[in-house]
Amino acid sequence: MESMKSPFKGIIKDVRGRTACYKDDWVSGLCSGLRILAPTFYIFFASALPVIAFGEQLSRDTDGSLSTVETLASTAICGIIHSILGGQPLLILGVAEPTVIMYTYLYNFSKGREELGQKLFLAWAGWVCVWTALLLVLLAIFNAATIIFKFTRIAGELFGMLISVLFIQEAVRGVVSEFNIPKDESSKLEEYQFQWRYANGLLSVIFSLGVLFTALKSRRARSWRYGTGWIRGFIADYGVPLMVVLWTVMSYVRPSEVPSGVPRRVHVPLLSDVESVHHWTVIKDMGKVPLTYIFAALIPAVMIAGLYFFDHSVASQMAQQKEFNLKNPSAYHYDVLLLGFMTLICGLLGLPPSNGVLPQSPMHTKSLAVLKRQLIRKKMVKSAKECIGQKASNSEIYGRMHAVFLEMDAPSPVSAQGLVLEGVHASFVELVPFKQIAIFTIFQFVYFLICFGVTWIPIAGILFPLPFFLLIGIRQRILPKLFQPNHLQELDADEYEEIAGAPARSRSLSLMEREPPDVDSEKSEDDFYDAEILDEMTTNRGELKLRTLSFKEDRLHQARNTYPL
Amino acid sequence: MESMKSPFKGIIKDVRGRTACYKDDWVSGLCSGLRILAPTFYIFFASALPVIAFGEQLSRDTDGSLSTVETLASTAICGIIHSILGGQPLLILGVAEPTVIMYTYLYNFSKGREELGQKLFLAWAGWVCVWTALLLVLLAIFNAATIIFKFTRIAGELFGMLISVLFIQEAVRGVVSEFNIPKDESSKLEEYQFQWRYANGLLSVIFSLGVLFTALKSRRARSWRYGTGWIRGFIADYGVPLMVVLWTVMSYVRPSEVPSGVPRRVHVPLLSDVESVHHWTVIKDMGKVPLTYIFAALIPAVMIAGLYFFDHSVASQMAQQKEFNLKNPSAYHYDVLLLGFMTLICGLLGLPPSNGVLPQSPMHTKSLAVLKRQLIRKKMVKSAKECIGQKASNSEIYGRMHAVFLEMDAPSPVSAQGLVLEGVHASFVELVPFKQIAIFTIFQFVYFLICFGVTWIPIAGILFPLPFFLLIGIRQRILPKLFQPNHLQELDADEYEEIAGAPARSRSLSLMEREPPDVDSEKSEDDFYDAEILDEMTTNRGELKLRTLSFKEDRLHQARNTYPL
Repeated sequence: MESMKSPFKGIIKDVRGRTACYKDDWVSGLCSGLRILAPTFYIFFASALPVIAFGEQLSRDTDGSLSTVETLASTAICGIIHSILGGQPLLILGVAEPTVIMYTYLYNFSKGREELGQKLFLAWAGWVCVWTALLLVLLAIFNAATIIFKFTRIAGELFGMLISVLFIQEAVRGVVSEFNIPKDESSKLEEYQFQWRYANGLLSVIFSLGVLFTALKSRRARSWRYGTGWIRGFIADYGVPLMVVLWTVMSYVRPSEVPSGVPRRVHVPLLSDVESVHHWTVIKDMGKVPLTYIFAALIPAVMIAGLYFFDHSVASQMAQQKEFNLKNPSAYHYDVLLLGFMTLICGLLGLPPSNGVLPQSPMHTKSLAVLKRQLIRKKMVKSAKECIGQKASNSEIYGRMHAVFLEMDAPSPVSAQGLVLEGVHASFVELVPFKQIAIFTIFQFVYFLICFGVTWIPIAGILFPLPFFLLIGIRQRILPKLFQPNHLQELDADEYEEIAGAPARSRSLSLMEREPPDVDSEKSEDDFYDAEILDEMTTNRGELKLRTLSFKEDRLHQARNTYPL
Repeated sequence: MESMKSPFKGIIKDVRGRTACYKDDWVSGLCSGLRILAPTFYIFFASALPVIAFGEQLSRDTDGSLSTVETLASTAICGIIHSILGGQPLLILGVAEPTVIMYTYLYNFSKGREELGQKLFLAWAGWVCVWTALLLVLLAIFNAATIIFKFTRIAGELFGMLISVLFIQEAVRGVVSEFNIPKDESSKLEEYQFQWRYANGLLSVIFSLGVLFTALKSRRARSWRYGTGWIRGFIADYGVPLMVVLWTVMSYVRPSEVPSGVPRRVHVPLLSDVESVHHWTVIKDMGKVPLTYIFAALIPAVMIAGLYFFDHSVASQMAQQKEFNLKNPSAYHYDVLLLGFMTLICGLLGLPPSNGVLPQSPMHTKSLAVLKRQLIRKKMVKSAKECIGQKASNSEIYGRMHAVFLEMDAPSPVSAQGLVLEGVHASFVELVPFKQIAIFTIFQFVYFLICFGVTWIPIAGILFPLPFFLLIGIRQRILPKLFQPNHLQELDADEYEEIAGAPARSRSLSLMEREPPDVDSEKSEDDFYDAEILDEMTTNRGELKLRTLSFKEDRLHQARNTYPL
């Protein structure tokens, strides 16, 4: 490894790059006005809700040793530290599902050992964090983050898929559990009699599906046909928090005959309660852990370090994709170093550590970024209006707008290619034989099943990050033997593609703009709402839908414009 | 009235027109192959479900004197008669909400009179039907149906709006009633204890919303990104029945602890039960009705006759809109005559009569018709493919397709205008000052509130069809004073616009095709599925979405092509 020879190189470079834009980030962030509230509220709820859910899961799986309090505390502490000291402030931190799984394994292991037991679980987990922190620091010092570029789309998609499936699995489990008596609760209580458990379960079905669908719908409010642009914009911006509040209120509207315990609510102890503070003293118990187990903690630590390193870097990478046109540099090495320290802090406080989360991180950037499309849209509307003024025919107007699109599009071949992927289908559909695509997809699916299956193995399941590390080798050694190079390039490009997150946001921050000042989104609100008429004929990235007619033809066209033949 | 002078004229004309195409309808219908099953299943469920719901409502409002059995029987009998003898076989018959309301008034009236009471309710209703039938026959003989063309869009929209609101009101009432103990049921039963009523109500919320959303989603399956064209087509065609079956099955999946009465099910007595046959003997009781009440029955009969005449004709008119390109002639007069006889039969059998229903009738035609768009789509795909073959630029392709569109579009200025209404907004938005639009909308809204309000008045509510008849005069005398003629023309065109029913269907019957044989949809399945790539850029009627950029510009363009200047 070349990078091993020059320790600290990456970190130093990252710190330099970061300090250069640190002040500016805060200034432009604070000067961006009230509109900053929209993405703030959005990402706050998008981060808090899963963390609460994972806290509930953790409390089920660790018999209450850890719960929502700890997951939220960890997310808050790490979030604040990272937002102030982080190298990539767009990265969103939180207690992720893999962490919950890891901690469940740690719990089941220590519970089974009388030297540890439930009592010393957090102390031992503390030691795991110490080792993990050490490993992360080493990875940062020796520039391991350079390896992240060896992870191609297949790794990102695989990991994203696993996270999504674990999310969904957790959601279903959560709803089902509402039909049952919670662990170590007395089944004597009225609310745990069958009829009320049943009612509670049905309510949870209604509330969970209700908040899901209404929140999703509200995100698309901008393309609604009714209401003013302002109202639609507001609903689209604040829909998710609004719906969470709305459905919470509705959960309190219930007949008086229903026992107070239905529907069930998340139990959050007050700081005054003893149980909420016993964690902060974990560091005292760490001395009580037998030496053998202190060293045994190295094994899970290796897995967790690898997992965090991968998860953190991929999340960071996806938060700064090419499409977002970020001005500021990346800081993979420095962020892994910082992650190490945060993991240490969490471990010593008896909290599950936080790391960069998917899909929130790219969703966050999207909700902030002025995507290329807005630039394109504005210019297209402008030219369209001119044409209309000149009573041009539709095809003339279209021609003009298409020209504008290609003109805007040309400077960056990469995103030009990216753009095409937003259409009905991706490039490989036309460039790779169906059989090859099928084989590749089956390989992906089987490999995913393996990764998912491993998470179900009782103790050895702690090895579930392994398949992801193996993937580097498989991608480099085995896949090239199975597929032609050009096909493989199409099927598994070396860039990360944009993942499907929340629909691209329209409100914008100048923060990351590359726009010339004259089209500053502040001034062009009107233009913007006019631009909405284009939503139906342009894709998320401003691409004209007609392009989906033929990718080949587009490519050719693209090429013609990008590199004049 | 000119038409009064020549009785039977309309009926004779209708019969002539009908006999000319009667045989052909059956032949092509029977020869159209399996694909006929899709629209058949669809419209069967679309007609049966509301009729069942109305039956439940009727049974609540008439203390069980009438129920689902009668509404279904009436719909079946009238449906069969009309499909064999009807002048406009596309018309769908059923017991409609207005009928339920009318019968509720009749019941409350007769219940309040000791000479009638609940016992003679159906006999008296029988007399109402006799009078109604007589009036309908007279309306048919004296060509009253010519008046239907005096009803402009405002009347159609108003009536459609009232029907929809009554539908929704009934749906909400139905769900709410699931939380309560049904009338004259002993509250002793376990299933009527609060906790089970609550569970029952929650289940009804889940099932009703579940079947609604899944059915709506499945109708749009054709534009899904996954699955083969065949599978998507199948889901889109059979989605509604499939979802009804699916959710019914799910309603049987419940824990054993839940009492058998939860969730509640529609009670349908067997023919063997006495209660299910006592209706057929109503005719014997009709002699027992006091003479005064026999004549008093004339008052509601006038209302019902007027209502049926209006409802039946409007439904028929909407089922044969210009866009559907029907070859066969209308038969308003003859159908009103036939409706008279069917009303008589229902009355004598103690059944609530059926009439042409909205929105099922236009939905039915839509589900059968080859709409213009398919023609346009096919040709556009064809030209697009040619262009692609020639490596044309997107704007060239678009230009060609737009040309094809206008060429296809030109022959019929009316539907050309209609086409524009499918875009983001309707024509008047650009041609009428906002203030005028606002005033007109407020007028519509207030008038609707009046119509809706009347339905809530206890006994006098039986007059609720009156506002609709008054509307003819208002439209002809008062509105022209308030609005400029050209504005009024835009706001309330003399044609019925296509109402928003089920998304236009893609499978087609040659039955009503105007297509040249070479693009017969049988052969062009492939073309068809290719054509789906156009769905995103074309509207329901094949209009290119770009047209929504500017209606004025379009119109101009339209004109230029339609009538060369």
